[in-house]
Amino acid sequence: MTLLIAVTWDPQPWVERFKKHLPKHDVAVLGHGDFDRSRIRYVATWGPKPGSLSDLPALEAIFSLGAGVDHLMGYQGLPDVPIVRVAQDDLTHRMSEYVVLHCLMHLRDQRRFDAAQRAKQWDQERSPPIASEVRVGVMGSGVLGQDAARKLKVMGFDVAAWSRSPKNGDGYRIYSGDDGLAEFLARTDILVSLLPLTPETRGILNRRLFEKLARDGQLDGPILINAGRGGLQVEEDIVACLDDGTLKAATLDVFQVEPLPQDSPFWTHPQVTVTPHNSAVSDPEMTARYIADQIRRHEAGEPFQNVVDRKRGY
Amino acid sequence: MTLLIAVTWDPQPWVERFKKHLPKHDVAVLGHGDFDRSRIRYVATWGPKPGSLSDLPALEAIFSLGAGVDHLMGYQGLPDVPIVRVAQDDLTHRMSEYVVLHCLMHLRDQRRFDAAQRAKQWDQERSPPIASEVRVGVMGSGVLGQDAARKLKVMGFDVAAWSRSPKNGDGYRIYSGDDGLAEFLARTDILVSLLPLTPETRGILNRRLFEKLARDGQLDGPILINAGRGGLQVEEDIVACLDDGTLKAATLDVFQVEPLPQDSPFWTHPQVTVTPHNSAVSDPEMTARYIADQIRRHEAGEPFQNVVDRKRGY
Ligand SMILES: NC(=O)c1ccc[n+]([C@@H]2O[C@H](COP(=O)([O-])OP(=O)(O)OC[C@H]3O[C@@H](n4cnc5c(N)ncnc54)[C@H](OP(=O)(O)O)[C@@H]3O)[C@@H](O)[C@H]2O)c1
Ligand SMILES: NC(=O)c1ccc[n+]([C@@H]2O[C@H](COP(=O)([O-])OP(=O)(O)OC[C@H]3O[C@@H](n4cnc5c(N)ncnc54)[C@H](OP(=O)(O)O)[C@@H]3O)[C@@H](O)[C@H]2O)c1
Repeated sequence: MTLLIAVTWDPQPWVERFKKHLPKHDVAVLGHGDFDRSRIRYVATWGPKPGSLSDLPALEAIFSLGAGVDHLMGYQGLPDVPIVRVAQDDLTHRMSEYVVLHCLMHLRDQRRFDAAQRAKQWDQERSPPIASEVRVGVMGSGVLGQDAARKLKVMGFDVAAWSRSPKNGDGYRIYSGDDGLAEFLARTDILVSLLPLTPETRGILNRRLFEKLARDGQLDGPILINAGRGGLQVEEDIVACLDDGTLKAATLDVFQVEPLPQDSPFWTHPQVTVTPHNSAVSDPEMTARYIADQIRRHEAGEPFQNVVDRKRGY
Repeated sequence: MTLLIAVTWDPQPWVERFKKHLPKHDVAVLGHGDFDRSRIRYVATWGPKPGSLSDLPALEAIFSLGAGVDHLMGYQGLPDVPIVRVAQDDLTHRMSEYVVLHCLMHLRDQRRFDAAQRAKQWDQERSPPIASEVRVGVMGSGVLGQDAARKLKVMGFDVAAWSRSPKNGDGYRIYSGDDGLAEFLARTDILVSLLPLTPETRGILNRRLFEKLARDGQLDGPILINAGRGGLQVEEDIVACLDDGTLKAATLDVFQVEPLPQDSPFWTHPQVTVTPHNSAVSDPEMTARYIADQIRRHEAGEPFQNVVDRKRGY
């Protein structure tokens, strides 16, 4: 009964935690010493190398060590076992902190006041609008999108969301599908992307979409916040749209290539805030506890939670 | 039946709004043309000049054009009529936006990531704590303090507050009086000041107080956010405490002298964020509407709301 850890990061923090939370299981690490492949029942992984998941005859489940599973969906010959993703309050709350922080930064034009401070200017010229005058549109209304939308509403923003399937928001409207998209964009001043990366969503944050955002808002142009995945965005389009005024500003936590290359124009673009894919870091302690709980559920005959739908890709 | 406007700012935006919301009243402006002093029933003021409020025999109420009344309390010979202050949702919500924004900026160490971006560094070294691990202490638990505390709690922070008189918080503890202060400070990582300026609170944000803040928190030292009044803070102490590590950082919206003088060390201090007293600007439209409502209440025989207690000074 072995759990195999297959990660692109330093595995050590994970090994310790899994041993603590799964005292009755063995823990092996891919690429660190030998182990008996026929005893591997579970894999906990981030970005598994080609071939690393094959030839595991006793495998019962694969756990993604993060909320997203796009790193797994492209894996050739992914074993036919449940893929369980992490969805835990800790990660969700961190993401909402990020989203609310950056929506408020844009609402209150904090970058303007930062610049005024550097210039020693007491800038009382124009006071920012209030949250209720600003429309935030959250793309993705799953675990993360729903929590973010709720908190944005508490802060006073005029919130709506967008999802694949029709559903009702808790006090805000959820648009859905291709039909709902144009209408959703036309009422959005700050676009927050919390979508998973799938064949359908790849490159969705492009010029055609930005051009459909509201242009009659209180913030002098539409703003993009992407904390979903870098593959959602067409980076050339973002830069060009910032430069020609189609977008006013962008806050990006995720990128097509990470770490963001030194020659990316985002680093120095005056309207761009770059964060190093840390909007909602998976805490090893919480994640190991979550996965250990899922394994205990499974071994007690209960179903896994947050199982990925392979056909949808998320 | 005349309303007199006595302000240190451009009166024009106020004149128009008052005329709109009080169509049956005359509106006069101090220092702009003649008016009959014996007909003045109401004064709407910010920072009245010495002598400007005397010799108004028909005066029934003075309205402060902002939430604070410290600008009035020092006035020699303040007429013995009710002082009504502005307390309206718009202003309250703006203040909570400011408080939540700056608490999240400190929580998530956004200034570090700003610096990393300038240096083109993909800084994943140390990820910030989550809000539930950080204790915010709100000084002042009135209209503004309560709304801010509630929203900070929704964002996940570990919240407490402090007030003059004992009271119960909605899901958080309110410490009170001198006795409660030390205990309140000892559990506080981010101190948010939303106090009124009174003889009791003048200079309260000083070294002695900063030294009582928690030093075992997750943010590498205590943080000060002052959006109350500049007179609450001893500015030399703030600078010295930042420099010797008693404080880690400060976000200041209010100052002893405003506009902040060019030679203030705050402008360039790397741990200080300066905003130009705009955390919660009084919107002329909303404020005029609020005051017109109060006048209508009064003329219909109902009591004014938010009347200042002169003895307490707020
Ligand atoms: N930057 C970071 O640090 C970080 C951290 C964690 C997660 N993330 C990203 O955030 C993503 C979302 O996480 P989650 O836990 O909220 O996922 P989730 O619960 O699966 O929710 C995904 C949401 O996206 C919607 N969606 C998916 N495909 C769509 C499409 N083609 N058109 C319209 N809507 C579509 C879904 O619609 P339905 O409701 O109709 O299914 C659902 O509302 C993850 O996949 C991950 O990539 C990033
Ligand atoms: N920066 C800006 O743009 C801006 C904008 C608006 C307002 N403000 C400032 O914010 C202040 C607060 O506004 P508010 O509407 O919340 O006022 P409020 O409703 O009167 O509340 C004041 C709070 O402070 C507490 N307090 C007063 N003196 C105290 C003392 N000596 N010790 C402990 N607690 C004390 C009061 O305690 P009790 O509950 O026991 O009475 C009350 O909880 C205003 O006075 C103004 O100076 C600043």
